Amino acid sequence: MKVVVDIMGADRGPAEIIKGAVEALADSRAVMVLVGDEAFIKAELKGYQYDPARIEIVDAKEAITNDDSPTNAIREKKESSLVKALEKTKNDPEVAGMVSAGSTGAVLTGAILKLGRIKGVARPCLAPLVPTAGDTTFTVVDTGANMDCKPEYLVQFAVMGAHYMRAMCGVENPRVALVSVGVEDKKGNELSKEAFARLKSLPDGVVNFVGNMEARDAMTGDYEVLVCDGFVGNVLIKSVEGAAMTVMKLLKSEIAASFRAKLGALFMKKSLRGLKRKMDYSALGGAALLGVDKAVVKSHGSSKAKTIRASIGQIVKMGERDIVGKIKESIRSTLSAAAEADAPSHE
Amino acid sequence: MKVVVDIMGADRGPAEIIKGAVEALADSRAVMVLVGDEAFIKAELKGYQYDPARIEIVDAKEAITNDDSPTNAIREKKESSLVKALEKTKNDPEVAGMVSAGSTGAVLTGAILKLGRIKGVARPCLAPLVPTAGDTTFTVVDTGANMDCKPEYLVQFAVMGAHYMRAMCGVENPRVALVSVGVEDKKGNELSKEAFARLKSLPDGVVNFVGNMEARDAMTGDYEVLVCDGFVGNVLIKSVEGAAMTVMKLLKSEIAASFRAKLGALFMKKSLRGLKRKMDYSALGGAALLGVDKAVVKSHGSSKAKTIRASIGQIVKMGERDIVGKIKESIRSTLSAAAEADAPSHE
Repeated sequence: MKVVVDIMGADRGPAEIIKGAVEALADSRAVMVLVGDEAFIKAELKGYQYDPARIEIVDAKEAITNDDSPTNAIREKKESSLVKALEKTKNDPEVAGMVSAGSTGAVLTGAILKLGRIKGVARPCLAPLVPTAGDTTFTVVDTGANMDCKPEYLVQFAVMGAHYMRAMCGVENPRVALVSVGVEDKKGNELSKEAFARLKSLPDGVVNFVGNMEARDAMTGDYEVLVCDGFVGNVLIKSVEGAAMTVMKLLKSEIAASFRAKLGALFMKKSLRGLKRKMDYSALGGAALLGVDKAVVKSHGSSKAKTIRASIGQIVKMGERDIVGKIKESIRSTLSAAAEADAPSHE
Repeated sequence: MKVVVDIMGADRGPAEIIKGAVEALADSRAVMVLVGDEAFIKAELKGYQYDPARIEIVDAKEAITNDDSPTNAIREKKESSLVKALEKTKNDPEVAGMVSAGSTGAVLTGAILKLGRIKGVARPCLAPLVPTAGDTTFTVVDTGANMDCKPEYLVQFAVMGAHYMRAMCGVENPRVALVSVGVEDKKGNELSKEAFARLKSLPDGVVNFVGNMEARDAMTGDYEVLVCDGFVGNVLIKSVEGAAMTVMKLLKSEIAASFRAKLGALFMKKSLRGLKRKMDYSALGGAALLGVDKAVVKSHGSSKAKTIRASIGQIVKMGERDIVGKIKESIRSTLSAAAEADAPSHE
């Protein structure tokens, strides 16, 4: 098995990505395919000890940046690391999937254009893994691939998200909830109300739809798959991140303001570190792009080596458990059922 | 000045609301008009010492609950505390505004039907006060009054929210930001992109529009007015609330798991309490309903006495500073300018 790693476009520069890829060699038997400037990669690799049979290099001289228009960049920058990584991912049957920490827009556009959508999938979606207050994980689909959605997209996000959580996190029957403004059936906006009706009318066994939820309960561990459009999902996930950071910051400044508290914090050092670790999303890797024809993980632009390592681990897991195959199968079987159930409400 | 207080419909029952209203007597010279079952109110008031000239009672035998359909309840439950409170608020010129901790839907519907919208306001919006990481406050407009919005509603929310923050929190030139998925001008969904264009093209001085923002930065103190539709605003505010609660819970459980940490927490007691107090939204009161023709504050259903007291304080402040008058004036002057600027993009 091979994992393709685009080393360009990340905030901390290519060396950090290479470091993550080399570290990931310890986690599986997969071969890393590093895509970027060959001379640079070779020079960097001199700093590590590794089995040369487990690192492949694809030379690519260009980089796509956040300033590039995604569609133009994918079409025109044919020598870019992202385009070459996508091509390698598509054409080499040994490749399980790819990781990039580059421009989200370019990764999305590139994956859809170069790898293609799974047949029947209207819109691929981004699915990050987020820790709950307990020891479990949940995902939010979509967190930013689709700004304006139709109800049927949300139904597909639900199906893909449930398969992802089952295969990735071993949740037998993931609880799927629709993000709304209250738990009552009638709460929501036009999009969520229509999506609610469609999710409710899916044949038994397609997804374990438990109804509407409030964003307040995102981290309780009561749900494994939170369904919404990419604008709302992005706001949700970033609000959670920002609020958690703020509380930690306030805690720090409260501690700094008092001698007694500083003393107390010394005793609590391990616990405070435990708290920080529990809230550390980066240890869980990046966001999977579900619905394209190979595994793709978009790692955060500011990813450190350990996040890249975790993102590579996600691809390995997705490969081992054939998540793309499972999503294909589920889309074929269950979404045809959904389409039939939907038919009367369409024009 | 009088403040009308609907004592019914709250989760903790009417006695808690009465307690908050009596406590609020200490904060200003306003008269409290308690609306609910007269015999019950009189019996409760026996437990307090207060100036009888500063409490008025309006008898109302019925209550509107969360199970009632808002529109039907307002039309049919004419003896309900909410309907009577709204009528008193409308008809008594000495009344600065009203507070209710009852059903949000019924308060919204009732306020619009009974008090009426300010001329020119397309949709009133809910504006809560939320603490930042510093010592400042911000608002999110709308947090749930309007699930599906047009771009022009968001422009009005921005104008009303800015006037509210200026008058309530003394912010000279509140920074108004549009909630989006990135800070770049082109980021967003159809609604936010169109709202962005309209906010950008407002004549100078109408609002201090600083552009798009990410939900991650909601609590940084960089913005005083966050603009979005009511669905997104509701998700944002509840995500923040849920994440903050989760971190506090994790902190508690980390402390409970270790003897050393428990010892440390003893030393940190004051700091931890300070943190909790800083994050306590309830001390800031409820959400103002901006755009109706008198001041209305919707206090949280689970409000304790001190939240009711703070909500009453908001009404007093809104009365003293004539916020409704200022919004009227701003809508008249600036939104006519906005309408002219908008005209070409309308069909």
